[in-house]
Amino acid sequence: MTLRPARAGRVGGGFWAARQRVNRDVTIPLGGTRIRESGAFANLERAARGSAGGHQGKVFADSDVYKWLEALAWERGRADNGVLAKAYEEAAGLVAAAQAPDGYLHTHTQLTGRERYSDLASSHELYCAGHLMQAAVAGSRAVGDDTLLRVATRLADHLVKDLPADTLDGHPEIETALAELYRETGTRPYLDLAARMVTTRGGETLPLKGHHGPGIRQDRVPLRRATTVEGHAVRAVYLAAGATDVAVETADEDLLAALARQWRDMVATKTYLTGGLGSVWYGEQFGGPHELTPETAYCETCAAVGSVQWAWRMLLATGEADFADLMERTLYNAVLPGLSLGGDRFFYVNALRVRAGANPDDRRAAARGRQDWYGTACCPPNVMRLFSSLGHYLASEDEEGVQVHLYASGEIRARGALLEVRTDYPWDGRVEIVVRETPDRPWTLALRIPAWADGAGVDGQPARAGGYHRVRRTWRPGDRITLDLAVRPRLTAAVPRLDVARGQVAVERGPLVYCLEQPDHPGAIVDDLCVAADPALRDGSPVAGLPAEVVPVLARGRVHAHREDDAGFPYRSADGPREPEHTGPVDLTFVPYYAWANRGAGPMTIWAPMH
Amino acid sequence: MTLRPARAGRVGGGFWAARQRVNRDVTIPLGGTRIRESGAFANLERAARGSAGGHQGKVFADSDVYKWLEALAWERGRADNGVLAKAYEEAAGLVAAAQAPDGYLHTHTQLTGRERYSDLASSHELYCAGHLMQAAVAGSRAVGDDTLLRVATRLADHLVKDLPADTLDGHPEIETALAELYRETGTRPYLDLAARMVTTRGGETLPLKGHHGPGIRQDRVPLRRATTVEGHAVRAVYLAAGATDVAVETADEDLLAALARQWRDMVATKTYLTGGLGSVWYGEQFGGPHELTPETAYCETCAAVGSVQWAWRMLLATGEADFADLMERTLYNAVLPGLSLGGDRFFYVNALRVRAGANPDDRRAAARGRQDWYGTACCPPNVMRLFSSLGHYLASEDEEGVQVHLYASGEIRARGALLEVRTDYPWDGRVEIVVRETPDRPWTLALRIPAWADGAGVDGQPARAGGYHRVRRTWRPGDRITLDLAVRPRLTAAVPRLDVARGQVAVERGPLVYCLEQPDHPGAIVDDLCVAADPALRDGSPVAGLPAEVVPVLARGRVHAHREDDAGFPYRSADGPREPEHTGPVDLTFVPYYAWANRGAGPMTIWAPMH
Repeated sequence: MTLRPARAGRVGGGFWAARQRVNRDVTIPLGGTRIRESGAFANLERAARGSAGGHQGKVFADSDVYKWLEALAWERGRADNGVLAKAYEEAAGLVAAAQAPDGYLHTHTQLTGRERYSDLASSHELYCAGHLMQAAVAGSRAVGDDTLLRVATRLADHLVKDLPADTLDGHPEIETALAELYRETGTRPYLDLAARMVTTRGGETLPLKGHHGPGIRQDRVPLRRATTVEGHAVRAVYLAAGATDVAVETADEDLLAALARQWRDMVATKTYLTGGLGSVWYGEQFGGPHELTPETAYCETCAAVGSVQWAWRMLLATGEADFADLMERTLYNAVLPGLSLGGDRFFYVNALRVRAGANPDDRRAAARGRQDWYGTACCPPNVMRLFSSLGHYLASEDEEGVQVHLYASGEIRARGALLEVRTDYPWDGRVEIVVRETPDRPWTLALRIPAWADGAGVDGQPARAGGYHRVRRTWRPGDRITLDLAVRPRLTAAVPRLDVARGQVAVERGPLVYCLEQPDHPGAIVDDLCVAADPALRDGSPVAGLPAEVVPVLARGRVHAHREDDAGFPYRSADGPREPEHTGPVDLTFVPYYAWANRGAGPMTIWAPMH
Repeated sequence: MTLRPARAGRVGGGFWAARQRVNRDVTIPLGGTRIRESGAFANLERAARGSAGGHQGKVFADSDVYKWLEALAWERGRADNGVLAKAYEEAAGLVAAAQAPDGYLHTHTQLTGRERYSDLASSHELYCAGHLMQAAVAGSRAVGDDTLLRVATRLADHLVKDLPADTLDGHPEIETALAELYRETGTRPYLDLAARMVTTRGGETLPLKGHHGPGIRQDRVPLRRATTVEGHAVRAVYLAAGATDVAVETADEDLLAALARQWRDMVATKTYLTGGLGSVWYGEQFGGPHELTPETAYCETCAAVGSVQWAWRMLLATGEADFADLMERTLYNAVLPGLSLGGDRFFYVNALRVRAGANPDDRRAAARGRQDWYGTACCPPNVMRLFSSLGHYLASEDEEGVQVHLYASGEIRARGALLEVRTDYPWDGRVEIVVRETPDRPWTLALRIPAWADGAGVDGQPARAGGYHRVRRTWRPGDRITLDLAVRPRLTAAVPRLDVARGQVAVERGPLVYCLEQPDHPGAIVDDLCVAADPALRDGSPVAGLPAEVVPVLARGRVHAHREDDAGFPYRSADGPREPEHTGPVDLTFVPYYAWANRGAGPMTIWAPMH
């Protein structure tokens, strides 16, 4: 079963429209300024002048420009205006000017004079090329721009012709980009090159670096044989997304089955409740199975973006709701937390727990709070491009009809139909879909019922959680269908092997994962809060310092009592009866995890003990 | 209160005698071979010839030679023989020959021609100097050798004269070495230099490196102000040991109080049940308070060695039993696991849990098992020198009498008395002490009763756990005293804030921490084993593949049942009644943690859920 993206999707109001507004008005302009400050534009200018030396920033600095350009392109597609167009065209012109006569483009290599492709394990030459291609595809699809598309095809043609045989980039990314460029241009050698790279991967051909083995660069096990994801989480999901593109475009069922197997193992054993990926700081890696410690979570924002892209491709390839479920979970709880509510501060790493007393010198500490920007600034523009293109992920179509995957107020145009969606989701579970235009023949409207949505209904009839609720009829303009996703607070626990959550619970509400944050609990530190065994979860009134539409969840709780000897060796006899460990009751206030660290940094937890 | 080390202590039989035998017969000779293979001797030879270039190995390669020489020196002190003496003298001669005419010595700097002291943050010049001085002090104390002592004093004199003002080494170590060299030679400027370094530390004078802040090199907060330990664990405890030496020798009560405060916070919030230190791979650091995840434990063997050294110095300075308790815990459960039972394979990092399915490419994975040696080979010779000098840590003396801190068969000579100790500790809790020689006046024999030893007795009278049981009398030759430390299996839990152990228990027996290891549980994987609520802990019969004297602990247990949906998303509703989560019963076999990974590598855990 293969779905196609809906012809058009547009977010027109509510939760995601507000986030898109902030992205467009604050984050993208800020990104332009920060990228300029980083020297990435200056690198392109120097390369355009044919200068040598003077490269500023990281070897992958070009990719920040490309991801930002991709965001600009999608924004122009949503609503073009002079400011966006001018910024896009100036930057695109600069990129075109920086390209070498034979199509090569990578300013770090051009300015340092290093031999091309001589250090692909670290140079990020093809990684940057991939992001350029994705920006070009966005420009072409969104506004028919061909400036970047010409640059991208010249670069791709150069790679097809001149890239040394069997070479790979240490950081996957170009695979999905080449496949997308093939889709946009029909040039088959681009897909062939992507397919070759996917097949070559895993042969331990990349040189090792430091203490790391080949797995970190996705070069230990060929994808067709792999049973799980491993190594650097961003590289893993980028590669998997590209491999999924290759599998679909080449009708490679074996490869697709292998990818599905890896995805299922990732979800079962290496995914945080938030959808976040990567539990190991050392090498920004996936940990072992069930190694999902909350406070040492890496959960790079880029890995979440890549996970959405992979899941979307698997969803289109299979039509299975699990992929859309993870996509939604990840979007709300692993991508969105990477950006402040104001859109001007960022998390690169997303911890699920921050303890009191974290050392501010510890560079791992989320206790340092959101940052203005990063020396390695991959994450902010990644969020920009995803949010700008969010409308593309709402729905798909196939021979049967239209499938709605994500719920947001707006419009979906697919299979000749135009659907209007009205909802206050995720705060409220009611979603109204009005058919505005429709072909005059039967087709199926498939509505995703998330796995958590026990008690959901469609037009008053029960709809089973976990899958698609399908309504087939000959639709008429003005027809409407009402979905109720039963959004209410719920308690979540983990399987026994996930021992870092043992004896603890999390609060979720609709697609949102919640957390306990220090500002709402002045009487105790978050580290000591427990959920009562009879928690009586309920929606609360707006919380001070957060936007009024944010619905907190209240619960009955307790506070762990500290006994006198708690200041000593923290291990004690477990023989004999245990003394009571808590005082109480206290009122707990859970807020959505994505909204944390917008009222200063400090203790926070997603999991809390239940006593 | 200040204690002095006993004049002499000798391990003469039982548990530690066997370990010392392996150390002497296997580990130290193997170390010589490996260090030669690493090129560290060749570096000294090249420096002796005045060559330039050709340095092999790490910048701190010299220190491997020095720590190995220190072990040889202590071994010669225990029982000199021609082989040991020849190896020691050859290597010491080589070191002497490598020293520059003005006393400087650091082969990496000498061979590379880098300016001396120009990169102290990374060069380890003073770190290596410190280990040389410790070897020299050992040689002088153990066998009166002055070859190395002359090298060390020339080097120390050079430092006193020529080291640029206010400079520090990125890796502390020289502080304790200079204090010890002062104790050995009486040369006050050595102590003054150590004191200056301890005082200067924490002023953020060392240049930063990579993403790390100043804390990692112990340069963020002056020791007198610090309330906890932070940063690189080995550096932290090495510095603290040196600072304790300085505090004692300069009668600096404020500094000693600050160190005691830091030690107590470390024990309460940053110490694993094993005594292991450092929970963060990234920078080999201490984590935040209660960040003590078992599977991502770093617990570098060197940090455990340094912790024993710091605790010993605090014990001598204060006479408080807590320090000896941690010293013993660390020795058995954090140093000893760093060495295989055969003495020829090593752990640099000591995980407290290894899960099934760990990726063998993950360089963090203890699942890879013990290694033959390491590129950074700091740990193996650190264990060698500690085991060779273990007799020194058994007892101390003061005006009142003799204090026995560690129990091992052998002899203690202190305050004119000679005590014979007979015991099968740690397997058995009975310790018999026979007075062989004694002055003819009253003195106090103080016996440490570990905090875990509830039910202990001395000559049939109850002795309170946690402190020293003191017997004062005029002793006569042939007097004997019998201590019973009530060694039996017990269950241990953690305080609530230590949430990674929530709902779980550990098994201990005497000073030993136990673990569940895969070879003893063929019917289930260790990840799924639980301790029953009525575990009925009891001693077991010898276990296949481990030495016959090792006493396993048996317990009633259960196995977590995997439900069909356990292969999916690992989070599930916690609302409503929970289904039973386990099958059972099964018999659990706990083995001492130090003995793990001697029957192949695989799943292991110290903490197990109690259901």
